[in-house]
Amino acid sequence: MATARLILLLTVAAAAAGSCCFCSAQEVIVGGVGEQLATAPPAAPAPSPPPPYCGSVRTAVEAHNIIGWKTVPADCAEYVSDYLTGERYGRDSDVVINEAIAYAESLKLSGHGKEIWVFDVDETALSTLPYQAKHGYGTKPYDHASFVQYVAGESAPALQGTLRLYRRLLQLGIKPVFLTDRTEDQRAVTTHNLLSQGYYSWEKLLLQPVGLQTTTQAFKTGERQKLVSAGYVIIGNIGDQWSDILGSPEGYRTFKYPNPIYYVA
Amino acid sequence: MATARLILLLTVAAAAAGSCCFCSAQEVIVGGVGEQLATAPPAAPAPSPPPPYCGSVRTAVEAHNIIGWKTVPADCAEYVSDYLTGERYGRDSDVVINEAIAYAESLKLSGHGKEIWVFDVDETALSTLPYQAKHGYGTKPYDHASFVQYVAGESAPALQGTLRLYRRLLQLGIKPVFLTDRTEDQRAVTTHNLLSQGYYSWEKLLLQPVGLQTTTQAFKTGERQKLVSAGYVIIGNIGDQWSDILGSPEGYRTFKYPNPIYYVA
Repeated sequence: MATARLILLLTVAAAAAGSCCFCSAQEVIVGGVGEQLATAPPAAPAPSPPPPYCGSVRTAVEAHNIIGWKTVPADCAEYVSDYLTGERYGRDSDVVINEAIAYAESLKLSGHGKEIWVFDVDETALSTLPYQAKHGYGTKPYDHASFVQYVAGESAPALQGTLRLYRRLLQLGIKPVFLTDRTEDQRAVTTHNLLSQGYYSWEKLLLQPVGLQTTTQAFKTGERQKLVSAGYVIIGNIGDQWSDILGSPEGYRTFKYPNPIYYVA
Repeated sequence: MATARLILLLTVAAAAAGSCCFCSAQEVIVGGVGEQLATAPPAAPAPSPPPPYCGSVRTAVEAHNIIGWKTVPADCAEYVSDYLTGERYGRDSDVVINEAIAYAESLKLSGHGKEIWVFDVDETALSTLPYQAKHGYGTKPYDHASFVQYVAGESAPALQGTLRLYRRLLQLGIKPVFLTDRTEDQRAVTTHNLLSQGYYSWEKLLLQPVGLQTTTQAFKTGERQKLVSAGYVIIGNIGDQWSDILGSPEGYRTFKYPNPIYYVA
Protein backbone atom coordinates (compact mmCIF):
# COMPACT_ATOMS: atom_id res chain seq x y z
CA MET A 1 0.00 0.00 0.00
CA ALA A 2 2.75 2.40 0.97
CA THR A 3 4.67 1.70 -2.22
CA ALA A 4 1.54 1.84 -4.33
CA ARG A 5 0.72 5.26 -2.94
CA LEU A 6 4.21 6.55 -3.53
CA ILE A 7 4.09 5.38 -7.10
CA LEU A 8 0.71 7.01 -7.49
CA LEU A 9 1.99 10.35 -6.27
CA LEU A 10 5.04 10.22 -8.48
CA THR A 11 2.92 9.24 -11.44
CA VAL A 12 0.59 12.11 -10.82
CA ALA A 13 3.46 14.51 -10.43
CA ALA A 14 5.20 13.32 -13.58
CA ALA A 15 2.01 13.48 -15.60
CA ALA A 16 1.35 16.98 -14.36
CA ALA A 17 4.73 18.19 -15.44
CA GLY A 18 4.03 17.74 -19.11
CA SER A 19 6.71 16.86 -21.56
CA CYS A 20 8.95 19.93 -21.40
CA CYS A 21 10.28 19.44 -17.90
CA PHE A 22 11.84 16.06 -18.32
CA CYS A 23 13.16 16.21 -21.86
CA SER A 24 14.77 19.65 -21.98
CA ALA A 25 18.55 19.35 -22.28
CA GLN A 26 20.79 22.12 -20.93
CA GLU A 27 21.50 24.31 -23.92
CA VAL A 28 24.94 25.93 -23.73
CA ILE A 29 25.98 28.64 -26.14
CA VAL A 30 29.76 28.85 -26.25
CA GLY A 31 31.63 31.98 -27.20
CA GLY A 32 35.19 33.22 -26.59
CA VAL A 33 38.38 34.69 -28.03
CA GLY A 34 41.27 32.51 -29.30
CA GLU A 35 43.17 30.59 -26.64
CA GLN A 36 40.77 31.60 -23.92
CA LEU A 37 38.17 29.21 -25.23
CA ALA A 38 40.59 26.30 -25.17
CA THR A 39 42.07 26.98 -21.74
CA ALA A 40 39.02 28.11 -19.79
CA PRO A 41 37.56 25.37 -17.61
CA PRO A 42 34.19 24.15 -18.80
CA ALA A 43 31.39 26.19 -17.26
CA ALA A 44 29.46 24.38 -14.55
CA PRO A 45 25.95 23.64 -15.81
CA ALA A 46 23.35 25.95 -14.33
CA PRO A 47 21.34 24.16 -11.62
CA SER A 48 17.99 22.98 -12.92
CA PRO A 49 15.04 24.81 -11.43
CA PRO A 50 12.52 22.62 -9.61
CA PRO A 51 9.81 21.26 -11.91
CA PRO A 52 6.95 23.75 -12.27
CA TYR A 53 4.37 21.26 -11.01
CA CYS A 54 5.81 21.19 -7.48
CA GLY A 55 3.78 24.24 -6.47
CA SER A 56 0.65 22.65 -7.93
CA VAL A 57 1.31 19.45 -5.99
CA ARG A 58 1.68 21.50 -2.80
CA THR A 59 -1.62 23.29 -3.50
CA ALA A 60 -3.31 19.95 -4.17
CA VAL A 61 -2.03 18.60 -0.85
CA GLU A 62 -3.35 21.68 1.00
CA ALA A 63 -6.75 21.34 -0.69
CA HIS A 64 -6.96 17.64 0.21
CA ASN A 65 -6.84 16.51 -3.40
CA ILE A 66 -3.68 14.42 -3.06
CA ILE A 67 -4.00 12.09 -0.07
CA GLY A 68 -2.36 8.98 1.32
CA TRP A 69 1.14 9.85 0.10
CA LYS A 70 4.31 8.72 1.82
CA THR A 71 7.11 11.01 0.65
CA VAL A 72 7.68 14.24 -1.24
CA PRO A 73 8.63 13.56 -4.91
CA ALA A 74 12.44 13.54 -5.06
CA ASP A 75 12.60 16.23 -7.73
CA CYS A 76 10.51 18.57 -5.55
CA ALA A 77 13.00 18.36 -2.64
CA GLU A 78 14.59 21.71 -3.47
CA TYR A 79 11.20 23.34 -4.00
CA VAL A 80 9.93 22.15 -0.62
CA SER A 81 13.05 23.17 1.30
CA ASP A 82 12.98 26.60 -0.40
CA TYR A 83 9.30 26.92 0.47
CA LEU A 84 9.82 26.07 4.13
CA THR A 85 12.96 28.10 4.69
CA GLY A 86 11.92 31.06 2.53
CA GLU A 87 9.15 33.58 3.11
CA ARG A 88 6.23 31.73 1.60
CA TYR A 89 5.59 29.18 4.38
CA GLY A 90 5.38 31.95 6.98
CA ARG A 91 3.19 34.04 4.73
CA ASP A 92 0.84 31.15 3.95
CA SER A 93 0.66 30.41 7.69
CA ASP A 94 0.01 34.04 8.60
CA VAL A 95 -2.92 34.27 6.19
CA VAL A 96 -4.50 31.25 7.90
CA ILE A 97 -3.76 32.56 11.40
CA ASN A 98 -5.06 36.05 10.59
CA GLU A 99 -8.29 34.54 9.30
CA ALA A 100 -8.61 32.42 12.46
CA ILE A 101 -8.06 35.45 14.70
CA ALA A 102 -10.54 37.56 12.71
CA TYR A 103 -13.08 34.75 13.06
CA ALA A 104 -12.51 34.39 16.83
CA GLU A 105 -12.79 38.15 17.32
CA SER A 106 -16.07 38.22 15.40
CA LEU A 107 -17.77 35.79 17.81
CA LYS A 108 -20.13 36.71 20.61
CA LEU A 109 -19.10 34.33 23.39
CA SER A 110 -21.38 33.04 26.11
CA GLY A 111 -18.82 33.40 28.87
CA HIS A 112 -19.78 30.07 30.47
CA GLY A 113 -16.17 28.93 30.32
CA LYS A 114 -16.78 25.85 28.17
CA GLU A 115 -15.75 27.34 24.85
CA ILE A 116 -12.57 25.71 23.59
CA TRP A 117 -10.24 25.75 20.59
CA VAL A 118 -8.55 22.51 19.58
CA PHE A 119 -4.89 22.68 18.58
CA ASP A 120 -2.83 19.92 17.04
CA VAL A 121 0.78 19.89 18.29
CA ASP A 122 3.43 18.86 15.71
CA GLU A 123 3.61 21.27 12.76
CA THR A 124 0.81 23.34 14.28
CA ALA A 125 1.71 24.45 17.82
CA LEU A 126 5.31 23.20 17.66
CA SER A 127 7.59 22.85 14.67
CA THR A 128 9.60 19.80 13.74
CA LEU A 129 11.46 21.66 10.99
CA PRO A 130 14.84 21.39 12.77
CA TYR A 131 14.33 17.62 12.61
CA GLN A 132 12.98 17.67 9.04
CA ALA A 133 15.95 19.70 7.81
CA LYS A 134 18.23 16.86 8.85
CA HIS A 135 15.99 14.19 7.34
CA GLY A 136 15.37 15.44 3.82
CA TYR A 137 12.25 17.60 4.31
CA GLY A 138 9.84 14.76 3.70
CA THR A 139 11.69 13.15 0.79
CA LYS A 140 12.72 10.16 2.92
CA PRO A 141 10.35 7.62 4.49
CA TYR A 142 9.24 8.36 8.07
CA ASP A 143 11.70 7.06 10.66
CA HIS A 144 9.92 6.59 13.97
CA ALA A 145 12.98 6.10 16.18
CA SER A 146 14.73 9.32 15.20
CA PHE A 147 11.48 11.29 15.35
CA VAL A 148 10.77 10.07 18.89
CA GLN A 149 14.30 11.10 19.81
CA TYR A 150 13.63 14.61 18.47
CA VAL A 151 10.42 14.88 20.49
CA ALA A 152 12.22 13.68 23.61
CA GLY A 153 14.70 16.53 23.23
CA GLU A 154 11.87 18.98 24.15
CA SER A 155 13.45 21.48 21.77
CA ALA A 156 10.72 21.90 19.15
CA PRO A 157 10.24 25.65 18.57
CA ALA A 158 6.79 27.24 18.60
CA LEU A 159 5.25 28.14 15.27
CA GLN A 160 4.96 31.87 15.91
CA GLY A 161 1.69 32.38 14.07
CA THR A 162 -0.04 29.68 16.08
CA LEU A 163 1.38 31.14 19.31
CA ARG A 164 -0.11 34.48 18.27
CA LEU A 165 -3.54 32.84 17.75
CA TYR A 166 -3.21 30.99 21.08
CA ARG A 167 -2.49 34.21 23.00
CA ARG A 168 -5.41 36.05 21.36
CA LEU A 169 -7.81 33.21 22.16
CA LEU A 170 -6.82 33.29 25.83
CA GLN A 171 -7.46 37.06 25.87
CA LEU A 172 -10.90 36.42 24.36
CA GLY A 173 -11.75 33.74 26.93
CA ILE A 174 -11.54 30.74 24.60
CA LYS A 175 -9.64 27.90 26.27
CA PRO A 176 -7.02 25.88 24.37
CA VAL A 177 -7.14 22.10 24.19
CA PHE A 178 -4.14 20.30 22.70
CA LEU A 179 -5.08 17.11 20.87
CA THR A 180 -2.15 15.18 19.44
CA ASP A 181 -1.20 11.79 18.10
CA ARG A 182 1.86 11.93 20.32
CA THR A 183 1.41 9.14 22.84
CA GLU A 184 0.82 9.15 26.61
CA ASP A 185 4.44 8.21 27.30
CA GLN A 186 5.35 11.56 25.69
CA ARG A 187 3.18 13.60 28.09
CA ALA A 188 6.02 14.97 30.21
CA VAL A 189 8.28 15.99 27.32
CA THR A 190 5.33 17.49 25.44
CA THR A 191 4.25 19.47 28.50
CA HIS A 192 7.77 20.80 29.08
CA ASN A 193 8.19 21.68 25.42
CA LEU A 194 4.86 23.52 25.18
CA LEU A 195 5.55 25.47 28.40
CA SER A 196 9.07 26.42 27.36
CA GLN A 197 7.77 27.77 24.06
CA GLY A 198 5.15 30.07 25.54
CA TYR A 199 2.06 27.86 25.62
CA TYR A 200 1.63 28.49 29.33
CA SER A 201 -1.82 27.09 30.10
CA TRP A 202 -4.45 24.80 28.62
CA GLU A 203 -7.73 23.16 29.49
CA LYS A 204 -6.58 19.70 28.41
CA LEU A 205 -3.63 17.99 26.78
CA LEU A 206 -5.02 14.88 25.08
CA LEU A 207 -2.54 12.26 23.86
CA GLN A 208 -3.03 8.87 22.20
CA PRO A 209 -2.92 5.76 24.37
CA VAL A 210 0.25 3.77 23.65
CA GLY A 211 -0.45 1.00 21.15
CA LEU A 212 -3.82 2.34 19.95
CA GLN A 213 -4.74 0.55 16.74
CA THR A 214 -6.64 3.21 14.84
CA THR A 215 -6.11 6.15 12.52
CA THR A 216 -5.30 9.59 13.85
CA GLN A 217 -8.57 10.85 12.40
CA ALA A 218 -10.60 8.22 14.26
CA PHE A 219 -8.74 8.92 17.51
CA LYS A 220 -9.20 12.66 17.22
CA THR A 221 -12.85 12.49 16.17
CA GLY A 222 -13.52 10.28 19.20
CA GLU A 223 -11.76 12.67 21.58
CA ARG A 224 -13.69 15.65 20.20
CA GLN A 225 -16.91 13.72 20.66
CA LYS A 226 -15.98 13.17 24.33
CA LEU A 227 -15.32 16.89 24.72
CA VAL A 228 -18.72 17.78 23.26
CA SER A 229 -20.42 15.13 25.42
CA ALA A 230 -18.74 16.74 28.45
CA GLY A 231 -20.38 20.06 27.59
CA TYR A 232 -17.54 21.77 25.75
CA VAL A 233 -18.24 23.91 22.70
CA ILE A 234 -15.56 23.55 20.05
CA ILE A 235 -15.35 27.07 18.65
CA GLY A 236 -12.39 26.32 16.41
CA ASN A 237 -10.01 23.55 15.45
CA ILE A 238 -6.61 23.95 13.80
CA GLY A 239 -4.18 21.36 12.50
CA ASP A 240 -1.69 20.81 9.70
CA GLN A 241 -3.34 17.53 8.64
CA TRP A 242 -6.82 17.00 7.24
CA SER A 243 -7.10 14.13 9.73
CA ASP A 244 -6.97 16.80 12.46
CA ILE A 245 -10.03 18.63 11.19
CA LEU A 246 -12.22 16.15 9.32
CA GLY A 247 -14.88 14.06 11.07
CA SER A 248 -17.89 15.11 13.11
CA PRO A 249 -17.76 16.92 15.50
CA GLU A 250 -15.14 19.03 13.71
CA GLY A 251 -15.76 22.25 15.58
CA TYR A 252 -17.71 25.28 14.38
CA ARG A 253 -14.87 26.20 12.07
CA THR A 254 -11.67 24.44 11.07
CA PHE A 255 -8.34 25.71 9.82
CA LYS A 256 -5.76 23.80 7.78
CA TYR A 257 -2.25 24.92 8.68
CA PRO A 258 0.22 24.45 5.80
CA ASN A 259 2.37 21.34 5.69
CA PRO A 260 3.96 20.12 2.45
CA ILE A 261 6.21 17.41 3.94
CA TYR A 262 4.15 14.59 5.40
CA TYR A 263 0.70 13.05 5.44
CA VAL A 264 -1.08 11.43 8.38
CA ALA A 265 -4.35 9.55 7.80
CA MET B 1 -23.21 40.40 6.01
CA ALA B 2 -21.83 40.76 2.51
CA THR B 3 -20.02 43.95 3.36
CA ALA B 4 -18.76 42.57 6.65
CA ARG B 5 -17.28 39.57 4.88
CA LEU B 6 -15.63 41.71 2.27
CA ILE B 7 -14.04 43.85 4.93
CA LEU B 8 -12.89 40.72 6.74
CA LEU B 9 -11.17 39.38 3.65
CA LEU B 10 -9.50 42.67 2.89
CA THR B 11 -8.37 42.99 6.49
CA VAL B 12 -6.93 39.52 6.44
CA ALA B 13 -5.19 40.18 3.18
CA ALA B 14 -3.75 43.48 4.37
CA ALA B 15 -2.56 42.00 7.64
CA ALA B 16 -0.95 39.12 5.79
CA ALA B 17 1.03 41.45 3.61
CA GLY B 18 3.15 42.71 6.46
CA SER B 19 4.50 46.22 6.55
CA CYS B 20 6.82 46.19 3.56
CA CYS B 21 4.19 45.89 0.87
CA PHE B 22 2.18 48.97 1.63
CA CYS B 23 4.84 51.40 2.79
CA SER B 24 7.55 50.87 0.18
CA ALA B 25 7.90 53.96 -2.02
CA GLN B 26 9.20 53.61 -5.56
CA GLU B 27 12.91 54.32 -5.25
CA VAL B 28 14.32 55.94 -8.38
CA ILE B 29 18.03 56.35 -8.89
CA VAL B 30 18.62 59.10 -11.42
CA GLY B 31 21.75 59.30 -13.55
CA GLY B 32 22.57 61.00 -16.84
CA VAL B 33 24.94 63.19 -18.80
CA GLY B 34 24.51 66.97 -19.02
CA GLU B 35 21.54 68.16 -21.06
CA GLN B 36 20.19 64.68 -21.50
CA LEU B 37 19.02 64.61 -17.92
CA ALA B 38 17.12 67.84 -18.30
CA THR B 39 15.48 67.07 -21.63
CA ALA B 40 14.65 63.39 -21.21
CA PRO B 41 11.03 62.79 -20.32
CA PRO B 42 10.55 61.48 -16.82
CA ALA B 43 10.69 57.69 -16.79
CA ALA B 44 7.36 56.01 -16.29
CA PRO B 45 7.30 54.32 -12.90
CA ALA B 46 7.73 50.57 -13.11
CA PRO B 47 4.40 48.79 -12.56
CA SER B 48 4.13 47.50 -9.01
CA PRO B 49 4.17 43.74 -8.74
CA PRO B 50 1.12 42.19 -7.10
CA PRO B 51 1.45 41.97 -3.31
CA PRO B 52 3.23 38.77 -2.30
CA TYR B 53 0.34 37.60 -0.14
CA CYS B 54 -2.01 37.10 -3.12
CA GLY B 55 -0.67 33.59 -3.69
CA SER B 56 -1.14 32.81 -0.01
CA VAL B 57 -4.71 34.08 -0.12
CA ARG B 58 -5.36 31.83 -3.14
CA THR B 59 -3.91 28.82 -1.30
CA ALA B 60 -6.03 29.64 1.76
CA VAL B 61 -9.15 29.77 -0.43
CA GLU B 62 -8.31 26.39 -1.98
CA ALA B 63 -7.73 24.86 1.47
CA HIS B 64 -11.06 26.21 2.78
CA ASN B 65 -9.39 28.52 5.27
CA ILE B 66 -10.84 31.75 3.87
CA ILE B 67 -14.59 31.38 3.42
CA GLY B 68 -17.62 33.55 2.89
CA TRP B 69 -15.84 36.18 0.81
CA LYS B 70 -17.53 38.30 -1.82
CA THR B 71 -14.80 39.66 -4.11
CA VAL B 72 -11.12 39.25 -4.87
CA PRO B 73 -9.03 41.95 -3.10
CA ALA B 74 -8.57 44.79 -5.58
CA ASP B 75 -4.78 44.72 -5.35
CA CYS B 76 -4.77 41.01 -6.26
CA ALA B 77 -6.66 41.61 -9.52
CA GLU B 78 -3.51 41.40 -11.65
CA TYR B 79 -2.30 38.33 -9.76
CA VAL B 80 -5.58 36.50 -10.32
CA SER B 81 -5.86 37.37 -14.00
CA ASP B 82 -2.21 36.31 -14.52
CA TYR B 83 -2.93 33.07 -12.66
CA LEU B 84 -5.99 32.24 -14.76
CA THR B 85 -4.59 33.21 -18.13
CA GLY B 86 -1.08 31.88 -17.51
CA GLU B 87 0.09 28.30 -17.08
CA ARG B 88 -0.51 27.82 -13.38
CA TYR B 89 -4.31 27.43 -13.40
CA GLY B 90 -4.11 24.68 -16.01
CA ARG B 91 -1.25 23.00 -14.16
CA ASP B 92 -3.06 23.16 -10.80
CA SER B 93 -6.14 21.73 -12.50
CA ASP B 94 -4.20 18.96 -14.24
CA VAL B 95 -2.67 17.80 -10.95
CA VAL B 96 -6.18 17.45 -9.48
CA ILE B 97 -7.54 15.72 -12.59
CA ASN B 98 -4.59 13.33 -12.81
CA GLU B 99 -5.11 12.36 -9.19
CA ALA B 100 -8.84 11.81 -9.82
CA ILE B 101 -8.12 9.63 -12.87
CA ALA B 102 -5.47 7.61 -10.98
CA TYR B 103 -7.97 7.09 -8.17
CA ALA B 104 -10.75 5.98 -10.55
CA GLU B 105 -8.40 3.60 -12.36
CA SER B 106 -7.35 2.05 -9.04
CA LEU B 107 -10.91 0.99 -8.17
CA LYS B 108 -12.39 -2.45 -8.58
CA LEU B 109 -15.91 -1.74 -9.79
CA SER B 110 -18.90 -3.94 -9.20
CA GLY B 111 -20.29 -3.51 -12.71
CA HIS B 112 -23.89 -3.21 -11.47
CA GLY B 113 -24.26 0.08 -13.33
CA LYS B 114 -25.10 2.20 -10.29
CA GLU B 115 -21.65 3.67 -9.75
CA ILE B 116 -21.66 7.38 -10.47
CA TRP B 117 -19.37 10.40 -10.37
CA VAL B 118 -20.88 13.79 -9.49
CA PHE B 119 -19.71 16.81 -11.49
CA ASP B 120 -20.46 20.43 -10.76
CA VAL B 121 -21.02 22.50 -13.93
CA ASP B 122 -19.75 26.11 -13.80
CA GLU B 123 -15.96 26.33 -13.31
CA THR B 124 -15.77 22.52 -13.20
CA ALA B 125 -17.30 21.01 -16.36
CA LEU B 126 -17.75 24.34 -18.16
CA SER B 127 -15.74 27.52 -17.82
CA THR B 128 -17.12 30.99 -17.29
CA LEU B 129 -13.72 32.61 -17.82
CA PRO B 130 -14.80 34.39 -21.03
CA TYR B 131 -17.47 36.07 -18.88
CA GLN B 132 -15.14 36.67 -15.94
CA ALA B 133 -12.54 38.32 -18.17
CA LYS B 134 -15.08 41.00 -19.05
CA HIS B 135 -16.20 41.43 -15.45
CA GLY B 136 -12.97 41.92 -13.56
CA TYR B 137 -12.02 38.30 -12.69
CA GLY B 138 -13.89 38.31 -9.42
CA THR B 139 -12.91 41.81 -8.28
CA LYS B 140 -16.43 43.16 -8.88
CA PRO B 141 -19.57 42.04 -7.01
CA TYR B 142 -21.57 39.25 -8.64
CA ASP B 143 -24.06 40.54 -11.22
CA HIS B 144 -26.83 38.00 -11.67
CA ALA B 145 -28.39 39.47 -14.83
CA SER B 146 -25.22 39.51 -16.91
CA PHE B 147 -24.21 36.06 -15.66
CA VAL B 148 -27.57 34.58 -16.67
CA GLN B 149 -27.11 36.19 -20.07
CA TYR B 150 -23.71 34.48 -20.43
CA VAL B 151 -25.22 31.10 -19.52
CA ALA B 152 -28.04 31.63 -22.00
CA GLY B 153 -25.48 32.10 -24.77
CA GLU B 154 -24.59 28.37 -24.46
CA SER B 155 -21.01 29.28 -25.31
CA ALA B 156 -19.18 28.27 -22.12
CA PRO B 157 -16.11 26.23 -23.15
CA ALA B 158 -15.31 22.90 -21.52
CA LEU B 159 -12.53 22.81 -18.98
CA GLN B 160 -10.30 20.37 -20.84
CA GLY B 161 -8.99 18.56 -17.77
CA THR B 162 -12.48 17.82 -16.53
CA LEU B 163 -13.49 16.62 -20.00
CA ARG B 164 -10.50 14.25 -19.89
CA LEU B 165 -11.66 12.87 -16.52
CA TYR B 166 -15.24 12.57 -17.83
CA ARG B 167 -14.15 10.54 -20.86
CA ARG B 168 -11.98 8.22 -18.78
CA LEU B 169 -14.81 7.58 -16.31
CA LEU B 170 -17.15 6.61 -19.14
CA GLN B 171 -14.51 4.16 -20.41
CA LEU B 172 -14.27 2.69 -16.91
CA GLY B 173 -18.05 2.31 -16.60
CA ILE B 174 -18.62 5.07 -14.04
CA LYS B 175 -21.63 7.18 -15.00
CA PRO B 176 -21.54 10.97 -14.80
CA VAL B 177 -24.17 12.94 -12.91
CA PHE B 178 -24.18 16.72 -13.29
CA LEU B 179 -25.34 18.53 -10.16
CA THR B 180 -25.48 22.31 -10.49
CA ASP B 181 -26.93 25.37 -8.82
CA ARG B 182 -28.05 26.50 -12.25
CA THR B 183 -31.84 26.51 -12.14
CA GLU B 184 -34.46 24.37 -13.90
CA ASP B 185 -35.28 27.18 -16.34
CA GLN B 186 -31.68 26.81 -17.56
CA ARG B 187 -32.03 23.08 -18.36
CA ALA B 188 -32.20 23.48 -22.15
CA VAL B 189 -29.28 25.90 -22.47
CA THR B 190 -27.19 23.83 -20.07
CA THR B 191 -27.95 20.63 -21.98
CA HIS B 192 -27.04 22.23 -25.32
CA ASN B 193 -23.86 23.73 -23.90
CA LEU B 194 -22.69 20.45 -22.32
CA LEU B 195 -23.40 18.48 -25.52
CA SER B 196 -21.68 21.02 -27.76
CA GLN B 197 -18.56 20.86 -25.57
CA GLY B 198 -18.16 17.08 -25.68
CA TYR B 199 -20.11 15.95 -22.62
CA TYR B 200 -22.23 13.65 -24.73
CA SER B 201 -24.09 11.52 -22.18
CA TRP B 202 -24.99 11.49 -18.52
CA GLU B 203 -27.08 9.57 -16.02
CA LYS B 204 -28.74 12.71 -14.65
CA LEU B 205 -28.60 16.47 -14.94
CA LEU B 206 -29.84 17.84 -11.62
CA LEU B 207 -30.66 21.55 -11.42
CA GLN B 208 -32.03 23.71 -8.61
CA PRO B 209 -35.75 24.43 -8.53
CA VAL B 210 -36.40 28.09 -9.38
CA GLY B 211 -36.76 30.15 -6.22
CA LEU B 212 -35.31 27.56 -3.83
CA GLN B 213 -34.51 29.28 -0.54
CA THR B 214 -31.46 27.37 0.64
CA THR B 215 -27.69 27.26 0.28
CA THR B 216 -26.03 25.46 -2.59
CA GLN B 217 -24.43 23.09 -0.08
CA ALA B 218 -27.81 22.16 1.43
CA PHE B 219 -29.34 21.66 -2.02
CA LYS B 220 -26.47 19.51 -3.25
CA THR B 221 -26.23 17.43 -0.08
CA GLY B 222 -29.95 16.72 -0.34
CA GLU B 223 -29.66 15.69 -4.00
CA ARG B 224 -26.74 13.36 -3.23
CA GLN B 225 -28.78 11.82 -0.41
CA LYS B 226 -31.60 11.13 -2.90
CA LEU B 227 -29.10 9.49 -5.26
CA VAL B 228 -27.77 7.21 -2.51
CA SER B 229 -31.34 6.40 -1.40
CA ALA B 230 -32.08 5.41 -5.01
CA GLY B 231 -29.24 2.88 -4.89
CA TYR B 232 -26.48 4.87 -6.54
CA VAL B 233 -22.91 4.62 -5.28
CA ILE B 234 -21.10 7.95 -5.43
CA ILE B 235 -17.58 6.91 -6.35
CA GLY B 236 -16.31 10.44 -6.75
CA ASN B 237 -17.43 14.05 -6.58
CA ILE B 238 -15.70 17.06 -8.13
CA GLY B 239 -16.45 20.75 -7.88
CA ASP B 240 -14.71 24.11 -7.71
CA GLN B 241 -16.53 25.10 -4.50
CA TRP B 242 -16.29 23.48 -1.09
CA SER B 243 -20.10 23.66 -1.04
CA ASP B 244 -20.01 21.13 -3.90
CA ILE B 245 -18.10 18.53 -1.90
CA LEU B 246 -18.84 19.07 1.80
CA GLY B 247 -21.80 17.45 3.56
CA SER B 248 -22.71 13.80 3.94
CA PRO B 249 -23.02 11.86 1.67
CA GLU B 250 -20.02 13.48 -0.03
CA GLY B 251 -19.03 10.50 -2.12
CA TYR B 252 -16.18 8.06 -1.48
CA ARG B 253 -13.69 10.67 -2.52
CA THR B 254 -13.97 14.36 -3.33
CA PHE B 255 -11.88 16.69 -5.46
CA LYS B 256 -11.63 20.46 -5.19
CA TYR B 257 -11.10 22.02 -8.61
CA PRO B 258 -9.22 25.34 -8.42
CA ASN B 259 -11.19 28.59 -8.43
CA PRO B 260 -9.72 31.83 -7.11
CA ILE B 261 -12.49 34.21 -8.26
CA TYR B 262 -15.73 33.52 -6.43
CA TYR B 263 -17.19 31.79 -3.40
CA VAL B 264 -20.56 30.02 -3.15
CA ALA B 265 -21.83 28.90 0.27
